[in-house]
Amino acid sequence: MKIIVDAMGGDNAPASNVKGALAAIREQGVEVILVGRGEEILQVLNEEGMKEPPAGMEIVHASEVVEICDNPATAFREKKDSSLTVGLNLLKDGKGDAFVSAGSTGALLAAATLIVKRIKGIRRAAMAPVVPTGNGGAVLIDCGATAECTPEYLLQFAFMGSYYAERVLGRPEPRVGLLNIGAEPSKGTELQQKTYALLQEAGEQGRIHFTGNVEGKEAVYGAVDVIVSDGYSGNIFLKTMEGTGGFLAKQLKAMFKKNLITKLAALLVSGGIRSFKKILDAGEVGGTAFIGISKPVIKAHGSSDDYAIKNAIRQAAKFAASGIIEDITENVEHMRLPVQAKKEEG
Amino acid sequence: MKIIVDAMGGDNAPASNVKGALAAIREQGVEVILVGRGEEILQVLNEEGMKEPPAGMEIVHASEVVEICDNPATAFREKKDSSLTVGLNLLKDGKGDAFVSAGSTGALLAAATLIVKRIKGIRRAAMAPVVPTGNGGAVLIDCGATAECTPEYLLQFAFMGSYYAERVLGRPEPRVGLLNIGAEPSKGTELQQKTYALLQEAGEQGRIHFTGNVEGKEAVYGAVDVIVSDGYSGNIFLKTMEGTGGFLAKQLKAMFKKNLITKLAALLVSGGIRSFKKILDAGEVGGTAFIGISKPVIKAHGSSDDYAIKNAIRQAAKFAASGIIEDITENVEHMRLPVQAKKEEG
Repeated sequence: MKIIVDAMGGDNAPASNVKGALAAIREQGVEVILVGRGEEILQVLNEEGMKEPPAGMEIVHASEVVEICDNPATAFREKKDSSLTVGLNLLKDGKGDAFVSAGSTGALLAAATLIVKRIKGIRRAAMAPVVPTGNGGAVLIDCGATAECTPEYLLQFAFMGSYYAERVLGRPEPRVGLLNIGAEPSKGTELQQKTYALLQEAGEQGRIHFTGNVEGKEAVYGAVDVIVSDGYSGNIFLKTMEGTGGFLAKQLKAMFKKNLITKLAALLVSGGIRSFKKILDAGEVGGTAFIGISKPVIKAHGSSDDYAIKNAIRQAAKFAASGIIEDITENVEHMRLPVQAKKEEG
Repeated sequence: MKIIVDAMGGDNAPASNVKGALAAIREQGVEVILVGRGEEILQVLNEEGMKEPPAGMEIVHASEVVEICDNPATAFREKKDSSLTVGLNLLKDGKGDAFVSAGSTGALLAAATLIVKRIKGIRRAAMAPVVPTGNGGAVLIDCGATAECTPEYLLQFAFMGSYYAERVLGRPEPRVGLLNIGAEPSKGTELQQKTYALLQEAGEQGRIHFTGNVEGKEAVYGAVDVIVSDGYSGNIFLKTMEGTGGFLAKQLKAMFKKNLITKLAALLVSGGIRSFKKILDAGEVGGTAFIGISKPVIKAHGSSDDYAIKNAIRQAAKFAASGIIEDITENVEHMRLPVQAKKEEG
């Protein structure tokens, strides 16, 4: 298994990216191609006491870096020698099995869609993070790649999220819920109402395990393995979850730091606080999978440290080994609306 | 100030409703009309050691109760002698200054809209809870009354939420944010993009203090005083916040209950835990204001205890005294889209 890593993307690049890759090679037995400015990558290796890349690591030089200020839609074209463009071309050409980047989300999505391309028949690629929930995490699909969706997109997200939950999270028969504001099929906007009918049909055909609408609260508590949503609502869900978690963690920290007695209390529950932090920590999960692209692409968090990059690489390897792209390819006919399929055939 | 209270709505009715009303009369100096089954209300009073309603309390008998299984849209018509219908007719007829119910949200919304009516020119009434945020709470408008909205509805929500934040929460020049998935005006769906332009215009005219788009995370942290949203997205935001808070509170409880040592830790930070709980507790805030109706209506949480009912009554009195219905009425012309206003004139 060979993972292509964008050495230059993210707030802590290239140091965290290189060190995360080193740890992944050591611990996970994967090979890594680091793409970026060769001299900067080598300097990090030197600081780690290495004169050259260790076994399992390859460096592919790319002189440019896509920055936050670049236009996400066109950055990969304007900067042809960027780590993003070079890395995704390597993926497209089969030089590696998956691509990991902690750089600009929008630029990565546009570049992956246009260089690596979507799976044939898939209308939109989705961003599918694993969000921390009461059942040990759920796949949220989509969390922002496509703000405005059609029922057909959501049908495709449901199938793709289901395969991901089964193959990558190891959930047999994953429960698929439609993010909504009530249980009844009539709830929500026209989008949710129409999607409900499609998901129900797919459920009745035994293609997915659709459990109905899921409200934000129940989703967090862990009622489903896959939360199906348009990108706008999914992003609201994700950011609200992050915000609430972060806000409460801050309150908690203040509570424990108040005085000597509360600091003693913190010591007494230090184990518990660690697992509490772990629940809130995005680094534990790794990155966000781009599902629907014809090869595995993982977006690591912009603030990723070594540990988060290492986890994103593990996730990329798991994604690549899972066979879900084959699942999607083989079943894509069941994810199409008859009318639109006809239109394309005609 | 006289508040009409639905004695029969909610999980703990009529006991909590009667006891909450008693506390409100005692502590807040308001008068209360309790609407519901006279004998059941009297029984609660008897249990509280009273033979008849105390000064400031009046009982209006209504023999029926709207139940969860009733059709929300028609319940108030089918049950003409329900506490809901009788209570709202009292409000309409000016027998009291505001109405509080912990019963079915849908039935209350439908009944308030059709009996008490919307303010002239207001297209949709909105449900506007005060959500716990880093700045001491923000008005979320709408949280589910209207799943599918037009830019004009959202423009009206922005004005109405702003008046509420100013007059009821006491925020001078309240910051109004549009719930969205990024800062740029181009973010979100067509609804957010069009609404952004309207809110910006209203801001430039000095009618509201529009601070731009606000993401879920920043909204929780307290970036704005008013979070403007369609009912679908607002409900996702609210329920995700509640779910995440509840989920983390559960984790925390488990952490403190683990063994004797962790229980000792809980004792040492008991003050902090209390304020932590207070942040998460919906009862502290009281209820959800229905804004856009021509008289003040407050929906208390279905699980309200005495304390929550008492707080909802306080909130109703504050709403009634605030003058925001007059604010809305006087400024409604600025909340209309020119084209549609023209259409109605013609």
